Amino acid sequence: MTTPANRDCRWVDDANAPLLVDLYELKMLQAYWKERMFDEAVFSLFVRRLPEQRNYLLACGLEDALHYLEHLRFDSDALGFLATRKEFSTDFLGWLKDFRFTGDVFAVPEGTPFFAQEPILEVVAPLPEAQIAETFLLNQINFQTVLASKASRVVVAAGPGRSVIDFGIRRMFGADAALKSARGFFIAGVSATSNVLAGAAYGVPITGTMAHSFIQAHDDELAAFRRFAELYPETILLVDTYDTLAGVRKVAQLAGELGHGFRVRGIRLDSGDLIQLAFQARGVLDAAGLRNVSIFASGSLDEREIERLVKAGAPIAGFGVGANMAVSKDAPTLDMVYKLTAYAGVGRLKTSPGKESCPGRKQVFRQEENGRYTRDLLARHDEPLPGAPLLGQVMAGGKRLPAGRRPLDAARLRAKAELAKLPERLLDLSPAAPPYLVEISAPLERHRREIVAQRQRPPA
Amino acid sequence: MTTPANRDCRWVDDANAPLLVDLYELKMLQAYWKERMFDEAVFSLFVRRLPEQRNYLLACGLEDALHYLEHLRFDSDALGFLATRKEFSTDFLGWLKDFRFTGDVFAVPEGTPFFAQEPILEVVAPLPEAQIAETFLLNQINFQTVLASKASRVVVAAGPGRSVIDFGIRRMFGADAALKSARGFFIAGVSATSNVLAGAAYGVPITGTMAHSFIQAHDDELAAFRRFAELYPETILLVDTYDTLAGVRKVAQLAGELGHGFRVRGIRLDSGDLIQLAFQARGVLDAAGLRNVSIFASGSLDEREIERLVKAGAPIAGFGVGANMAVSKDAPTLDMVYKLTAYAGVGRLKTSPGKESCPGRKQVFRQEENGRYTRDLLARHDEPLPGAPLLGQVMAGGKRLPAGRRPLDAARLRAKAELAKLPERLLDLSPAAPPYLVEISAPLERHRREIVAQRQRPPA
Repeated sequence: MTTPANRDCRWVDDANAPLLVDLYELKMLQAYWKERMFDEAVFSLFVRRLPEQRNYLLACGLEDALHYLEHLRFDSDALGFLATRKEFSTDFLGWLKDFRFTGDVFAVPEGTPFFAQEPILEVVAPLPEAQIAETFLLNQINFQTVLASKASRVVVAAGPGRSVIDFGIRRMFGADAALKSARGFFIAGVSATSNVLAGAAYGVPITGTMAHSFIQAHDDELAAFRRFAELYPETILLVDTYDTLAGVRKVAQLAGELGHGFRVRGIRLDSGDLIQLAFQARGVLDAAGLRNVSIFASGSLDEREIERLVKAGAPIAGFGVGANMAVSKDAPTLDMVYKLTAYAGVGRLKTSPGKESCPGRKQVFRQEENGRYTRDLLARHDEPLPGAPLLGQVMAGGKRLPAGRRPLDAARLRAKAELAKLPERLLDLSPAAPPYLVEISAPLERHRREIVAQRQRPPA
Repeated sequence: MTTPANRDCRWVDDANAPLLVDLYELKMLQAYWKERMFDEAVFSLFVRRLPEQRNYLLACGLEDALHYLEHLRFDSDALGFLATRKEFSTDFLGWLKDFRFTGDVFAVPEGTPFFAQEPILEVVAPLPEAQIAETFLLNQINFQTVLASKASRVVVAAGPGRSVIDFGIRRMFGADAALKSARGFFIAGVSATSNVLAGAAYGVPITGTMAHSFIQAHDDELAAFRRFAELYPETILLVDTYDTLAGVRKVAQLAGELGHGFRVRGIRLDSGDLIQLAFQARGVLDAAGLRNVSIFASGSLDEREIERLVKAGAPIAGFGVGANMAVSKDAPTLDMVYKLTAYAGVGRLKTSPGKESCPGRKQVFRQEENGRYTRDLLARHDEPLPGAPLLGQVMAGGKRLPAGRRPLDAARLRAKAELAKLPERLLDLSPAAPPYLVEISAPLERHRREIVAQRQRPPA
């Protein structure tokens, strides 16, 4: 039986997020508690394989992961619900009441490109504390990384000087994704979002003009343009509700009416053959002396379509991108895992086929030559290797360190600077040949073999 | 400038959901307000085309849509943020302060199968009230329908007698999707979820046992099984951490140790060749007299893989499904739109190529013969046609009616009953030939042509 209060829950918040967890985590917690397995554990969060269409991923989601760990506690509603399940003992729930995350976290900063097998976050904490975080950390870091990585490709395809605007709320999977994706897109280089809440919450630039319904609600398209431009002189007018070129001519007509009072900044095409329409619309606008009126495009765009438009030289100043970026349609998920790699000072790993992992705490050393990255070395955390170490400590004893509290702009700048240093072939939309080189250090490989060998010995 | 309070926002809730909106909706609202365009509007929410791999969709998300409309108001934080934007006048924001949704809503019940072009929700309200709802209604109904529709295929593939368990939190796009998807999956026929919060919030059955990390944290796999079975006698043991068949033999060994005290309910395979391993594991278990121990499978499953396992006769009692169902990998989005179809008593439509719509309020009449549905008629809302009308009123004057407050179980039962009446070819995983028949009534088609003809006349 759940309480009526619980049944009214419609939103996830700090209070109930601890229950946004796979039941097995809590069952394992009770088992660990019962067996007094409170020794230090290391969990590594990494992606096993990149999706075929991704040459790199962009780390995103750390901010919400750390916020969760800082606020992780089971309140009386949560404990009340768990008490309705006969598998949890009263003593365990009493222990859970005082449960807090007291561990250390090491992570790569948001906006860092990374590759398969490289940990982007490691948790070092008493086993139950590190275990329970699995579900929520993956829930947040997986989708935010999926979306930032997709958006990075879209921004690269648009190229410098052409803006990408996020139009994704309506296609996004729910409210939490809609809010946080706009933040991830901004880190990846998207210029602005239509999402008002993302503006309020994160200060992401917001933008928006009109929908087809505005035109349709008026009896006449020109009258609709006129009214909108009176209220928002520097607006962008949507011209494809009925007949696109007729719509563009009405914009020219409005310019004639208003003379020097005409300050409309652009028009938006949202359907049809965008290359042909962009050239034709440009012709109509130029013939009317409206060279300063830019053309924006939207409608089922993705990075490949944007690349096609740019390569064709279509006179388009910016792209509104919705569904395809909002759900990362070609790669909506990642094989991102959170794996136990050490417990009680002993390295641990899985040997299931295709799911092998590397034991212990690790570090990634990124090496460069002449201002470009050449390879990453995946190593034990304390190896003295050349190259920039990617993982830094962001939380100590359950408290955030300054390195775990970076402003959003810093992540955006980092993504831009790091991308500029990647080998150029990685910025191609097609699979890079060869892919970026990630090597495992000799000491890490030796450690892995030792653990495998130990596992294959029969237990004493 | 945003307020520090706003900048701390990390979760969407009833108070800030009104800002989870495309900026253009608010800009259009101000324009409607300025022009006194407060007449009655009709907006239809429908899917333009089904994804190639979907023979039907399952309506889901109405509950959250209605909750949003009931709670839609701009509080002082929201108004404070909007006041920082120079495009909104103080007078408009004063009007927005008292803004409420006062309209009527017609909708098909959650759990109803539907097809392209069929409205599943219509809003009839003063234009600004109907307009503003676009973004959030699509955000919720689109993703919940995507996920319920995908889950329905997975459940059909598993067939009767084999359970499907949702393991999706970690792959889901964020917290809101993780919570609500479990509800949508349950409507679609999924048996249970690993998601504890979904249990607390909706009463969805929850289930879970152990992860690989539990095994790895112990020095010895058998010891881990023993400890877990002591605490949870009727558990399912995960056997593939190191060597799957060796794991199964350890379960048999544990059964020998415990004798009549052995009550383990099943084992779970999570990697490798599931058909071969299921048969081999069955052999090991049967040889040990453990015929009552069932085999469960997980690991990158989707409806096609489940169909393959079932057709091969693999002795598997249930499937844990994660990523592929959680993001509806083969069709993560829908071409779902919310279109103005009438304003001030006059039918409205777009004529952009490929984006044509039908004017006015509509109804869908579902016709059956011998207990199976044969075709749907998409008609004007007040036509006297045979067949069951799908849309019913769920909200009047901004207040929910009893029909807008259905228990979750009713939606689940409806989905099951309605699916059983669909033509059998629609339940195949491959595209049905021919697809389900949706016809437009003669009066609706006539009305559409009248509106198109009016639009093509030059304005007076």
